[in-house]
Amino acid sequence: TNPVFTGLETTIFETMSRLAREHGAINLGQGFPDVDGPEDVRRVAAEALVDGPNQYPPMMGLPDLRQAVAEANRRFYGLDVDWASEVMVTSGATEALTDCILALVEPGDEVILIEPLYDSYLPIVRRTGGIPVRVRVTPPTWSLDLDALERAFTENTKVILLNNPMNPAGKVFTEAELARIAELCVEHDVYAICDEVYEHLLFDGSVHRPLMSFPGMRERTVRVGSAGKTFSLTGWKIGYVTGAPKLLDPIAKAHQYVTFTTPPNLQKAVAHGLRKDDAYFNSLSAELQAKRDLLAKGLSRLGFGVLPCEGTYFLTCDITPLGLEGRDVDICKRMVTEAGVVAIPVSAFYIADAPTNYIRFCFCKRDEILTEALDRLGTWL
Amino acid sequence: TNPVFTGLETTIFETMSRLAREHGAINLGQGFPDVDGPEDVRRVAAEALVDGPNQYPPMMGLPDLRQAVAEANRRFYGLDVDWASEVMVTSGATEALTDCILALVEPGDEVILIEPLYDSYLPIVRRTGGIPVRVRVTPPTWSLDLDALERAFTENTKVILLNNPMNPAGKVFTEAELARIAELCVEHDVYAICDEVYEHLLFDGSVHRPLMSFPGMRERTVRVGSAGKTFSLTGWKIGYVTGAPKLLDPIAKAHQYVTFTTPPNLQKAVAHGLRKDDAYFNSLSAELQAKRDLLAKGLSRLGFGVLPCEGTYFLTCDITPLGLEGRDVDICKRMVTEAGVVAIPVSAFYIADAPTNYIRFCFCKRDEILTEALDRLGTWL
Ligand SMILES: CSCCC(=O)C(=O)O
Ligand SMILES: CSCCC(=O)C(=O)O
Repeated sequence: TNPVFTGLETTIFETMSRLAREHGAINLGQGFPDVDGPEDVRRVAAEALVDGPNQYPPMMGLPDLRQAVAEANRRFYGLDVDWASEVMVTSGATEALTDCILALVEPGDEVILIEPLYDSYLPIVRRTGGIPVRVRVTPPTWSLDLDALERAFTENTKVILLNNPMNPAGKVFTEAELARIAELCVEHDVYAICDEVYEHLLFDGSVHRPLMSFPGMRERTVRVGSAGKTFSLTGWKIGYVTGAPKLLDPIAKAHQYVTFTTPPNLQKAVAHGLRKDDAYFNSLSAELQAKRDLLAKGLSRLGFGVLPCEGTYFLTCDITPLGLEGRDVDICKRMVTEAGVVAIPVSAFYIADAPTNYIRFCFCKRDEILTEALDRLGTWL
Repeated sequence: TNPVFTGLETTIFETMSRLAREHGAINLGQGFPDVDGPEDVRRVAAEALVDGPNQYPPMMGLPDLRQAVAEANRRFYGLDVDWASEVMVTSGATEALTDCILALVEPGDEVILIEPLYDSYLPIVRRTGGIPVRVRVTPPTWSLDLDALERAFTENTKVILLNNPMNPAGKVFTEAELARIAELCVEHDVYAICDEVYEHLLFDGSVHRPLMSFPGMRERTVRVGSAGKTFSLTGWKIGYVTGAPKLLDPIAKAHQYVTFTTPPNLQKAVAHGLRKDDAYFNSLSAELQAKRDLLAKGLSRLGFGVLPCEGTYFLTCDITPLGLEGRDVDICKRMVTEAGVVAIPVSAFYIADAPTNYIRFCFCKRDEILTEALDRLGTWL
């Protein structure tokens, strides 16, 4: 069996969720909300199941949803997108990213990955025969080392994979960082695969700037969005890819052999969701910001070294100030059994040479759950 | 962009469905029923959407559905399957097959494919770096050339991909053919990936025999089933893989990075469906058999050389007796515009050297649609 997948571990998120269930621990590990998204969106999906049809939708996705994605590109970012040739629906953002990598990376191509990185990127890059080239954002500020970035671009670079807003760092890439990434992509004729699933989860008034909107990037960027993250329905597994026809075309061919299509009732409901008014999107981020503040204040009070969080629903903390023995992995294990709280060791997001003093908390949970988790951690410490 | 996917055509099924819509033609091309599957199954899914939770289910699938798949393996085939280590749910059978190929095939491995073959197999085998080795079943009887099969097995063979019941041939592999395939797999230490999505669509009293149930195959076979085909809900994209832990483990790792999970509400409903009584499964095949007969008789009367169909919902026909000019592709094109009926040219299911005198009709349509299609073809001819 293929060495890329043989012996790989179950994803850390799944593992920690399983541990949470086994120990009755509060799960601030895997990134999912504990309150389902809008009921009207769910009702649209439910009605479409009963009314039908429940047969294959078009391979590229329902026109209605593809149009809604194109509209959202314009409404939120001023991007002019042709739904018919530049938007495709996938069975989740994970599938979208896999399709992009399968379609754009050939054996021997270098792919720039920014650590800490989401755990699906590396195995799929490896499975395509791509060569991962690592660059980092460095805590505690999570700023990008621009010199290292420049050195990472070579004549063999085919793709850079950018996650912005960035999981687990809670980082929003700065205008200057994005501009430099774009310049280097243009200079070296490199494609950008942008995992922007947290595009609507931004705090403190900051605004998402898709890398696609930078000079020279429109034709060389694909960006991936997620209904799961945008509508707090992570189980729905509806993602969408926006990109120039020249890029989207081979990506669609990968999609057609990876899942082929995505349930039409869920697609219809997501189209409805994307057309919600600003109030929905504003309250989504406002509510999350309040939760971030609740958790950040509580963790600071307990002695965690809370790092900045400008977006996503993840908060990273330095555990050094706690003065406990052990690395992030050990502390997370102890936290499950001794405190009854699950967090994710940030070292799981590194390919090698990981820092081992950071852990990630997910804060898209009911306030009473966050408070209870803080209480438990307080008692434990 | 990767040459495996660049320049590939949109799947023939999608293309022909698009043509059908554009020309208002009756679509006997892409394989999907025109009546949705059981309402109770759809209601279970709809209620689960409203009641929630709508968040990530376990990566391997809902335990309830995995148990139902294990139960079905025992009920229908007497296979003893441990749901917790031997069953995984995927976002459709296409994803399941892709996961299997990604996990089991390494660059340089030979993969035996049986023509005519479903169109996703070859591009995914190529994308993994596998080397396709072709064997055929030959019309009009669609029997397998066992000498050619034996010659196809070499010391580099890693996997054989078997679709049984077989699309587009409507063939059910004979006991003798399956036994020989199994012997060769054991002798050459080869894995079998079995696409058995039409397992419940068998006619004339024939019974499905999973290759997995042959001597020596239990540990070297993964079999893939499909809720879309079994419950006439092709848009749901729920598939399942059954296989020994040693094989399922790397396949699950591929799945975790390809789609990660599958909508929980649909999974719950499919679990309900798989536990339906025999009456459901019997009437599914009985109804389809009647449709097969309706279409086969009508096409014979019109002069098509109707080939045997023992399973699936596809009927293949020799067009030679019609005495028309042109290959299958040309005839199918003319049929869309001139007759208003869509069929699929069987040459689309071949890698090379395809016969060009066969076309495929899908018969899982309402009787009045089949009759209308026959009328149109009659008028045209
Ligand atoms: C796909 S499981 C994990 C969800 C997530 O994005 C995370 O926890 O980082
Ligand atoms: C995945 S689209 C095609 C459905 C099907 O299996 C077929 O028509 O052969």
